[in-house]
Amino acid sequence: MSEKIYDTIILGAGPAGLTAGIYCKRAGMDIVVIEKNMPGGQVGTTYEVCNYPGFDKISGIDLATKMFEHASSIGVEVVFEEVKKVNLTDKIKIVETFSGTYLGKSVIICFGAAARKLNLDNERQYIGKGISYCATCDGALYKDLQVAVVGGGNTAIEDAIYLSNIAKKVYLIHRRDEFRAEKALQDSIKKIGNVEYVLSSVVVGLNGNEKIQSIDVKNLADNTVKNIKIDGLFVAIGRGPETDFLDGVNVDKNGYVISDANMCTNIEGVFVAGDIRNTPLRQIVTACSDGAIAATKAYEYIKR
Amino acid sequence: MSEKIYDTIILGAGPAGLTAGIYCKRAGMDIVVIEKNMPGGQVGTTYEVCNYPGFDKISGIDLATKMFEHASSIGVEVVFEEVKKVNLTDKIKIVETFSGTYLGKSVIICFGAAARKLNLDNERQYIGKGISYCATCDGALYKDLQVAVVGGGNTAIEDAIYLSNIAKKVYLIHRRDEFRAEKALQDSIKKIGNVEYVLSSVVVGLNGNEKIQSIDVKNLADNTVKNIKIDGLFVAIGRGPETDFLDGVNVDKNGYVISDANMCTNIEGVFVAGDIRNTPLRQIVTACSDGAIAATKAYEYIKR
Repeated sequence: MSEKIYDTIILGAGPAGLTAGIYCKRAGMDIVVIEKNMPGGQVGTTYEVCNYPGFDKISGIDLATKMFEHASSIGVEVVFEEVKKVNLTDKIKIVETFSGTYLGKSVIICFGAAARKLNLDNERQYIGKGISYCATCDGALYKDLQVAVVGGGNTAIEDAIYLSNIAKKVYLIHRRDEFRAEKALQDSIKKIGNVEYVLSSVVVGLNGNEKIQSIDVKNLADNTVKNIKIDGLFVAIGRGPETDFLDGVNVDKNGYVISDANMCTNIEGVFVAGDIRNTPLRQIVTACSDGAIAATKAYEYIKR
Repeated sequence: MSEKIYDTIILGAGPAGLTAGIYCKRAGMDIVVIEKNMPGGQVGTTYEVCNYPGFDKISGIDLATKMFEHASSIGVEVVFEEVKKVNLTDKIKIVETFSGTYLGKSVIICFGAAARKLNLDNERQYIGKGISYCATCDGALYKDLQVAVVGGGNTAIEDAIYLSNIAKKVYLIHRRDEFRAEKALQDSIKKIGNVEYVLSSVVVGLNGNEKIQSIDVKNLADNTVKNIKIDGLFVAIGRGPETDFLDGVNVDKNGYVISDANMCTNIEGVFVAGDIRNTPLRQIVTACSDGAIAATKAYEYIKR
């Protein structure tokens, strides 16, 4: 077990973690980034990114690779290990992975958040090929086409409204007979002509070849199943951070880490960036920005 | 004079304004961006950008161009006019330029901030060729070289500390005999071996050929002038937003627009993004992030 103490341990190598790495390294800090999957986080599973400024159109995997290579080019070290346990409350932070133990003067939590899936057998094969978990990311691909949104919360309604400006037709599919989204949003969507509600219904089948072409939707009231032709399916049934293991770090009722504008958490020396925090918008560029701020504040913290 | 009312008028086409434009346009909003200079803002005058995630090294002008082309490619309209006067307090916002009048349901202020210059005759010719106004942006170019920082406030001391990790030697030149930076920073810099103070002194001359090679520094106590060889000169004597004309918008004591995490100002329908707001960090990626958030919140505002 190494006795080396890093200036900062960065948890996660998505856009937030990689940007934090870039900023820490450029400030001359001794850091390590710990990631259990591929670098790039959710970006790597996005079919096409059209809203990261500077790239008018780039595949998610290409952008993820560019960010990883950018970080690597200036010496940011990423180790591919899964975090088992952390102890963040003491002055020296301890991060245990399944392969070893890391000590740090500070920690930047950048573990992101993952969308809840429909859990249908062939769902994975259509991800990026008609199935998306982010309307703001991928909506623009469906100009004048037919799409469906699944969900009944704020995000689902917001997604349906957003898509109604782009797509020819939007089906809004929800398992209950009323939405739980806030009234203002429900009032807004009522005024829109090209949104059709499919209530008390769940998606039970996904059909297509290379891309998705239609969905089977079961009405829970009468158990009938109907087929709806669509070009895109937006799943908005929730998204969540994995913060269970972050003992001592304050999170909000949805599990997101509570932070201030400086990306500080309730624990000294523990910073947070990206989708895992209580941010007003979860986008690639906002995660990167969080990472830059967290790195700068971590730098100021260890210099004090 | 047109009676057209835009969903949003974006003031400024730097990274914040262009990103706001991209997000607004993708949301289907009817917008216009007003810029008096070249698009890209301060990015266009940065010699080399190494900390915008995804581009490991790109000239400022190239990155500015890519962002502008990205926005243009999806139909963001930028008009090159200088703003004369605004009226933001009413429900319909009015922006008067020297060429016309624009009406909008909302406004996103992205006018940025500009660094104060030394005001030496040949200063402009060395910008990006040894003279920089941003240590975090350009510091990494001076690994193991000699640099000077001019200034005595927090930014100057922070810059000197930042550069001391990168450069071989840092001269810290200040016109007074003591710094006005906060004590913690002054304590920090005292511990650093490769920073040399040049107090009660001002830079009176810049020398070099293609790039800067040395500076003439006058001691105000005894009026002697000495020549200091340097590879880079970082000017940190202040930076400021131009917010005088933003009548009714609350600004802090330094003139920056006060905003919350949603980029809302004190006026309904008036949002702010980028260096002109009271942000914890002024970087390209943070400005872009602000723009994305401001656009999203402006969209929600006009849909209500």
